[in-house]
Amino acid sequence: MRVHAYAAPGPSEPLAPTLIERREVGPNDVLIEIKYAGICHSDIHTVRGDWGPQPYPLVPGHEIVGIVTEVGSEVTRHQAGDRVGVGCMVNACRDCVNCRNGDEQYCLNGMVPTYGGVDRDGTVTQGGYATHVVVDADFVLSVPEGIDLAAAAPLLCAGITTYSPLRRSGAGPGKKVAVVGLGGLGHLAVKIAHALGAEVTVLSQSLKKQEDGLRLGANHYHATSDPDTFEQLAGRFDLIINTVSAHIDVDAYLGLLAVDGTLVNVGAPAEPLTLNVFSLIGARRSYAGSMIGGIRETQEMLDFCTEHHIGADIELISADKINDAYERVLASDVRYRFVIDTATLG
Amino acid sequence: MRVHAYAAPGPSEPLAPTLIERREVGPNDVLIEIKYAGICHSDIHTVRGDWGPQPYPLVPGHEIVGIVTEVGSEVTRHQAGDRVGVGCMVNACRDCVNCRNGDEQYCLNGMVPTYGGVDRDGTVTQGGYATHVVVDADFVLSVPEGIDLAAAAPLLCAGITTYSPLRRSGAGPGKKVAVVGLGGLGHLAVKIAHALGAEVTVLSQSLKKQEDGLRLGANHYHATSDPDTFEQLAGRFDLIINTVSAHIDVDAYLGLLAVDGTLVNVGAPAEPLTLNVFSLIGARRSYAGSMIGGIRETQEMLDFCTEHHIGADIELISADKINDAYERVLASDVRYRFVIDTATLG
Repeated sequence: MRVHAYAAPGPSEPLAPTLIERREVGPNDVLIEIKYAGICHSDIHTVRGDWGPQPYPLVPGHEIVGIVTEVGSEVTRHQAGDRVGVGCMVNACRDCVNCRNGDEQYCLNGMVPTYGGVDRDGTVTQGGYATHVVVDADFVLSVPEGIDLAAAAPLLCAGITTYSPLRRSGAGPGKKVAVVGLGGLGHLAVKIAHALGAEVTVLSQSLKKQEDGLRLGANHYHATSDPDTFEQLAGRFDLIINTVSAHIDVDAYLGLLAVDGTLVNVGAPAEPLTLNVFSLIGARRSYAGSMIGGIRETQEMLDFCTEHHIGADIELISADKINDAYERVLASDVRYRFVIDTATLG
Repeated sequence: MRVHAYAAPGPSEPLAPTLIERREVGPNDVLIEIKYAGICHSDIHTVRGDWGPQPYPLVPGHEIVGIVTEVGSEVTRHQAGDRVGVGCMVNACRDCVNCRNGDEQYCLNGMVPTYGGVDRDGTVTQGGYATHVVVDADFVLSVPEGIDLAAAAPLLCAGITTYSPLRRSGAGPGKKVAVVGLGGLGHLAVKIAHALGAEVTVLSQSLKKQEDGLRLGANHYHATSDPDTFEQLAGRFDLIINTVSAHIDVDAYLGLLAVDGTLVNVGAPAEPLTLNVFSLIGARRSYAGSMIGGIRETQEMLDFCTEHHIGADIELISADKINDAYERVLASDVRYRFVIDTATLG
């Protein structure tokens, strides 16, 4: 089955329209007519080779929503007409301790990323900037009625990436949560932390997006470019979610945590960071990392977001604007996620 | 009240016998006849000025056990004849959120260290290398019958320092715990983790102390100087307690943790450490720090150690051997804690 897609021909060339082959629908597969695909910052890193060499041409996209058009003979959890989503992974071994614990993203045999990976049948995976995709049913999420499909797309990566550490770290009533960076991840972190009942503070470089931040659910908003911020908020937070992948002064952020507080990075700078261990010991603090979430947890997040009317704030674009959108993402000029209308791919 | 003690006259001079003044027993004070005082590595760092300037002459010692000889009019929890202990702090504000939570060691107004600090009455605190000490009753622990007094002394610092993160991180049946370094802290970490029911692995530079490690309760023993160790044990542990204050390769140790695993430093190198955030994100790991424990928790530790017959393995010395002992601690030549018989101070 040949389908329309947008692919990067190489690390330094713009994405261009193309046709790609999708595999036949196997017994446990689901064929999805993609409706919307979000543009994640990591799409750009990956196709440009920042994280290592890639199999080109490469179709990015791991924030996928659409409608099921066909299911394999053994599929029971999805059927034609269902609203579904696919996130950052399309397979895993299902047998290692992490898979068995529902942490497929940490599969000891290597989870299969939605694009640029090699699936268990030997084919190279191609992502969501396409009209259709065939995915193993166990890695297809249900998108509940009651949430806008286009606004739901970014939940599949940005949503679960922030939901998981918020939920696992106990963000909720009585907890003070800070979100560093108000971009695609950050704006969902604010919405989700607010819906969980936490007191939410945005820590952004400037106050430019303050009005947005408060509208999204933040209780407070501070500029990290103002050194007073770090003095004024010392020891304040139970949890800090750092959505910024650039280098940060880890000790300065650890200093904002109360006893037993945790700083969680959901992105990682390419260069190692330095920290003074006294920043941890001085108040029993932790510096932690988190990467997306498991399939069960992603479904829980979609259900939670639907219940709390949380979708991404998006800018819907046609396929011919993908390269422009990449430049605008790199310039932090997006409020807060680009989503491709895949009807424009054909 | 003038009492015999051993003090450091300055940062580069050997400790020498002296007489120091102890304050009058106030309404909430306890006068303790010290029987034994442990020598902690931090005594050496402190008196030598490694952690900043000190008020000399300085009497170190924060692993103190003895017998109550007098109590103030308002003291109800201790009485003359009681076996008691004093650890790393002798006062705190008792009013901040951390004190109220039983985390006096993280007192927001500054806990008062057992020596080299300024107590709330304005006097400079002097530690346990002395025949007597006067301490506020709220910072005096009960040492239960059934534990050898000399072996109990190191529990007041080394014991609580390792007990607290082991207990809080859920070390117990089904959990794999590694202890980095088999010194004063490490040997107690092994005993306590074993008593908690965890599967215990020692990670030591060489296999020199392997026999000891297994005798103390470890199930496995590996040399960190062997690069195979890091490959063989990759992803193995739920918890690693790092008792070594020297520089370590944080990423290498994080790589030994399973999903949700935590590396806890209980000591801190003077220089900042570097780490690659991918080491955290790749398996939802944490890098944490912990500093001694609160008063309530320290009492719980003493009760736990008594119940499980855990004391330190000690080498009892007379006061005139303190300077030799310091050199031997610095050369890692002690199995596993020097304890001063304070009867030899007079």
